[in-house]
Amino acid sequence: MKTRAAVALEAGKPLEVMEVNLDGPKAGEVMVEIKATGICHTDEFTRSGADPEGLFPAILGHEGAGVVVEVGPGVTSVKPGDHVIPLYTPECRECASCLSGKTNLCTRIRATQGQGLMPDGTSRFSLPDGTPIHHYMGCSTFSNFTVLPEIAVAKVREDAPFDKICYIGCGVTTGIGAVINTAKVEIGAKAVVFGLGGIGLNVLQGLRLAGADMIIGVDLNDDRQEMATRFGMTHFINPTKVENVVQEIVEMTKTPFDQIGGADYSFDATGNVRVMRDALECTHRGWGQSVIIGVAPAGAEISTRPFQLVTGRVWKGTAFGGARGRTDVPKIVDWYMDGKIEIDPMITHTMPLDDINKGFDLMHAGESIRSVVLY
Amino acid sequence: MKTRAAVALEAGKPLEVMEVNLDGPKAGEVMVEIKATGICHTDEFTRSGADPEGLFPAILGHEGAGVVVEVGPGVTSVKPGDHVIPLYTPECRECASCLSGKTNLCTRIRATQGQGLMPDGTSRFSLPDGTPIHHYMGCSTFSNFTVLPEIAVAKVREDAPFDKICYIGCGVTTGIGAVINTAKVEIGAKAVVFGLGGIGLNVLQGLRLAGADMIIGVDLNDDRQEMATRFGMTHFINPTKVENVVQEIVEMTKTPFDQIGGADYSFDATGNVRVMRDALECTHRGWGQSVIIGVAPAGAEISTRPFQLVTGRVWKGTAFGGARGRTDVPKIVDWYMDGKIEIDPMITHTMPLDDINKGFDLMHAGESIRSVVLY
Repeated sequence: MKTRAAVALEAGKPLEVMEVNLDGPKAGEVMVEIKATGICHTDEFTRSGADPEGLFPAILGHEGAGVVVEVGPGVTSVKPGDHVIPLYTPECRECASCLSGKTNLCTRIRATQGQGLMPDGTSRFSLPDGTPIHHYMGCSTFSNFTVLPEIAVAKVREDAPFDKICYIGCGVTTGIGAVINTAKVEIGAKAVVFGLGGIGLNVLQGLRLAGADMIIGVDLNDDRQEMATRFGMTHFINPTKVENVVQEIVEMTKTPFDQIGGADYSFDATGNVRVMRDALECTHRGWGQSVIIGVAPAGAEISTRPFQLVTGRVWKGTAFGGARGRTDVPKIVDWYMDGKIEIDPMITHTMPLDDINKGFDLMHAGESIRSVVLY
Repeated sequence: MKTRAAVALEAGKPLEVMEVNLDGPKAGEVMVEIKATGICHTDEFTRSGADPEGLFPAILGHEGAGVVVEVGPGVTSVKPGDHVIPLYTPECRECASCLSGKTNLCTRIRATQGQGLMPDGTSRFSLPDGTPIHHYMGCSTFSNFTVLPEIAVAKVREDAPFDKICYIGCGVTTGIGAVINTAKVEIGAKAVVFGLGGIGLNVLQGLRLAGADMIIGVDLNDDRQEMATRFGMTHFINPTKVENVVQEIVEMTKTPFDQIGGADYSFDATGNVRVMRDALECTHRGWGQSVIIGVAPAGAEISTRPFQLVTGRVWKGTAFGGARGRTDVPKIVDWYMDGKIEIDPMITHTMPLDDINKGFDLMHAGESIRSVVLY
């Protein structure tokens, strides 16, 4: 069949909206009509050519929501008409990783997904001239119709609006999950979030949901205070306006009883490796945990003195917020529908597929939190 | 009173055994007759001048065992005649750190201990000419008699031999505790220990105690295999004899079901920051934990790509094995007396105080695991 899609033909070029060929789902696969998709920094990381593992031509996009329209042989967990969120981190519930109970990083289809292919080693997409187009993060939600492995879709309730819950496909889950699944923040904690963009705001609301007492936001841009406060931030630091952001956080978190100071938890949502170091070092001696969420530039390294760890700090990271997609994503949709978390104010812009490059422009200009393409 | 002690008069010089002045215990302090003390790399780190925080003159030594001979006003938890192990990590059970339940790093007397002083800001030791001598790590076990805060002694059973349990004052607890308290290794785990010296051997026996299935030892010295095997090592790697130690460990830990590979837990007992990186990177994607035990040279930094953490590895450190001294050390003494852990084969040399510098020579020559001074 044919479908309209925004294709990344070459690194660094704008996406081209065109009609492409799409083969139907093979065994264990499903075809999904994408109803809405967010535009994430990771898409831009690959589009721009900065991603050393980027493949072209490709159909990017990994933050979508839609409806199953067809299932291949052997598919049992979803049927046509089911509402689903595509998962760039699948959940097979059979591999060593899924069964470990210790990680969400299912490895069942990792190798082919990294090559931009379906699990059988081929692509379902091709250009009008027949040239195969790479899938992206196993999702390719910048296409109106896409094919995914059955283990890479989360079935969600049918009353949830696509134009909002698509954001649960990446940013919302990543931010909230970092708090809940990776750091396991407890009620009363003191936490710091570095970077108050789309991910950072979701970390903030995750901390609010977890019952943190002190939620410190750090950002170079004072204009982000208002929205951050709305999502739970209790204190703000602009690092350009203090002498030393680490020392500032240590002082802010001291109490009459605890004169050591330091955050119980910190989160880096910037992708800057120097910020990641600050995020670690501002945590509390003895038990502070720092979680890296941001994606660093290729080759960049984090560093610190080992003394920071020997005196009890823990350095962690998170991917997709430690969430098991098929198990946890439907719960997060419920939380949204129940009003436990907010999404609407973060969707600052919507546009049709034809205008998708405007979404990237808004991201660069820092004008959007999230742009969503509506099909 | 007078006591015989080995004094570090200057950085880089051999210790001088001499008679020094010792004041009695003040309020909240106890005087202990040290019966035996191990010689640890940390003593040498300070003696040599490599420790940027080293103070001189000082009476070093922090791995001792002895008998309480006198208590100051207000002391209630021990009495003369009690057998004790001095604690360089005290346990006040009243500070924010002790009460957090999350760390063993009691901060009650941290400031003065770091300055080589008792909690009131003075020293109990002085040279014959009256010059104060610094305490060391709050212990100064290279003196036949020493004074410590009450919160810095662990009361232990009286049938345990001083010449063996002194090692529980640092090396044994650090190694075993890293496994049990910090990493919380579970039955069936696969683990790697980098560095098979005194600490590394204790990590090995901690892993055996914890029920690990695969216990890989890594050391440049093949001669260490025999002793390491005795303490529980199941596989050995000499990193000079394989192309890439990280890849070697990943391969060794693969199973037919798990083709990702990697250790569940790794421990650095070398103090070498490049080894610390290997220790992190050889752990399993999704859940591997690496624990830094070794003390790195001043200014040295650890580094890695953040991707290592984002894909689920956790970087930690441990001090005194995460053990709460007064609570956990008596249990470890019981484990020794019950035969659950071994210490005797690791005490390779004993000597009188007059020969203490020979203990440092043996350490440098790599001939000893632990030398113990018997008073």
